[in-house]
Amino acid sequence: MTKNRQVLLASRPDGAPSAANFELAESDIPTPGEGEMLLRTIYLSLDPYMRGRMNAEKSYAEPVPVGGVMEGGTVSVVEQSNNGKFQEGDILVGRCGWQDYVVSDGTSLGKVDPGTAPVSTELGVLGMPGLTAYSGLLRLGKPKEGETLVVAAASGAVGANVGQIAKIKGCRAVGVAGGPEKCDFVVNELGFDACVDHRADDFEAQLAAACPDGIDIYFENVAGRVLEAVIPLFNFWARMPVCGLIAQYNMQDLPQGTNMLPALMRAVLTYRLHIEGFIVRDFADMHADFQRDMGQWVRDGKVKYKEHRVAGLENAPETLMGLLKGENFGKVVIEVSDDPTA
Amino acid sequence: MTKNRQVLLASRPDGAPSAANFELAESDIPTPGEGEMLLRTIYLSLDPYMRGRMNAEKSYAEPVPVGGVMEGGTVSVVEQSNNGKFQEGDILVGRCGWQDYVVSDGTSLGKVDPGTAPVSTELGVLGMPGLTAYSGLLRLGKPKEGETLVVAAASGAVGANVGQIAKIKGCRAVGVAGGPEKCDFVVNELGFDACVDHRADDFEAQLAAACPDGIDIYFENVAGRVLEAVIPLFNFWARMPVCGLIAQYNMQDLPQGTNMLPALMRAVLTYRLHIEGFIVRDFADMHADFQRDMGQWVRDGKVKYKEHRVAGLENAPETLMGLLKGENFGKVVIEVSDDPTA
Repeated sequence: MTKNRQVLLASRPDGAPSAANFELAESDIPTPGEGEMLLRTIYLSLDPYMRGRMNAEKSYAEPVPVGGVMEGGTVSVVEQSNNGKFQEGDILVGRCGWQDYVVSDGTSLGKVDPGTAPVSTELGVLGMPGLTAYSGLLRLGKPKEGETLVVAAASGAVGANVGQIAKIKGCRAVGVAGGPEKCDFVVNELGFDACVDHRADDFEAQLAAACPDGIDIYFENVAGRVLEAVIPLFNFWARMPVCGLIAQYNMQDLPQGTNMLPALMRAVLTYRLHIEGFIVRDFADMHADFQRDMGQWVRDGKVKYKEHRVAGLENAPETLMGLLKGENFGKVVIEVSDDPTA
Repeated sequence: MTKNRQVLLASRPDGAPSAANFELAESDIPTPGEGEMLLRTIYLSLDPYMRGRMNAEKSYAEPVPVGGVMEGGTVSVVEQSNNGKFQEGDILVGRCGWQDYVVSDGTSLGKVDPGTAPVSTELGVLGMPGLTAYSGLLRLGKPKEGETLVVAAASGAVGANVGQIAKIKGCRAVGVAGGPEKCDFVVNELGFDACVDHRADDFEAQLAAACPDGIDIYFENVAGRVLEAVIPLFNFWARMPVCGLIAQYNMQDLPQGTNMLPALMRAVLTYRLHIEGFIVRDFADMHADFQRDMGQWVRDGKVKYKEHRVAGLENAPETLMGLLKGENFGKVVIEVSDDPTA
């Protein structure tokens, strides 16, 4: 490669993003100065939260500016180093964004040991989505043996880990996923006790049947129809950690129809529901425990993972659009350039 | 009196309760057996939660059976005692229900010292509503100096205490109440920083103007229009203890129109809202602290209270119907029989 390709936010989407909201720009490969390094992106992570960054509105993070490089987690290799901390050939995990190359002074980058697991797992089971599942479930969900947990997007990056960790903690894990292929995988490969297809006409009845003892923990990452189906099934003292709302990210106006807010509030009062939003960085103090536990569980085969890989940075926009529609099957990873450890 | 009057639940209401749902029955005054006492009710507390007990549905407490005596908190005097623990003339607080007389073995009754405050305050500021405000605000609301608290039904039994305790803790207290008379009282007598009339056409704009720094704690006891107006004003890390939903207690079907659930969920995720339902008995461990602090604050004039008194047990049904429509002004107390301490 002789040029640096970058995917920029060309314009803010109205509703679902389209190709016109992105621009693939080319520029010269930057040159590292004193104390800096040139990093080449190997893998780029695509995640639902990116939809929020495309909006102008106040949220828990700053929006990507129009014309700016799309943000994202990455695994990179050091091509050139004038930095004492990292050497040429080191594999680093960080947030270098949707681009082939970046110059960095090493801030907020972590060195990856390629000997423990494929380095792309630093973007999934051993990275941000894994920590989201681990910290939100253990800190807010407080799973107890014999309880029932429900999580949607159960074959996805966060949901798959939530259910598998809940199983390790002795819970009944019930997944929700889109279509029979994903549901089969969630039960037969990931070991959930049940998985319900949210596209089924009688989804609500199937979910109730899969939770004969009610729901003690609903790990919320989608909202929409799944949340509405969960509300009547809550047990006393149920917990609802909230880390994502993918079903409503493209929503421009509040929907018309039945107002479900009083139904949720009734459940909050009657069952003393505990609902709490969180962002993975809120629980940074759990990172060491996460690395120890999750690393062990992955090595022991207690936690399995599935990647949905797409080759080529140029395909990232379309892949993100698909992710927001649930078209991925597993953790979405863009193969940006050759992985020297593979 | 030679007869015992009891208000029974004659039938379960559809929507708002009506006189037909209650029956005033007369029977002989019961006779205490060995170890028992005859109690005469002096004051009966009416509270919004009673609407929930009139339904057949599963909730945090058992429904009152059709034909059963309506439940309620009471202050009583011991008329006759075969019980070693309490003497004739003792004033007791408990849950003796909507009736003139009851026989009790003393279980779940507490002795009231008539020297500290009027004994009816055991049903309000020094009783269940006071503890609801104190425990929910301190345990779940976690008020910090300089924060903004909003509470509705601000001239009512719980809301008045929530705002006054928040002021003691250094918060800006913003009340919501129905009509200018209540709003004036909340600001000028109770010392809230502001109070907004929820009947105003521009209520939402007035509430926003009263909370220039956003909302850190919304103590939820009403839901409905107030909750919907609060959602856009939440600050990061805001807390919402939920102890009541009076605006939706008479609701039979979920309302049609705009579905506000996605708006609440967006706030939960973006601002890491902590929503938690509670019932006063969940925080029974705070009772001693409550008695010490609240007793002191009432004696020091830092916490004021207002009672809405209605004479006659026979008027309890109509008074409860009015309470559910916000027609009371202060803590509702039914004067059932002569108060020997007054």
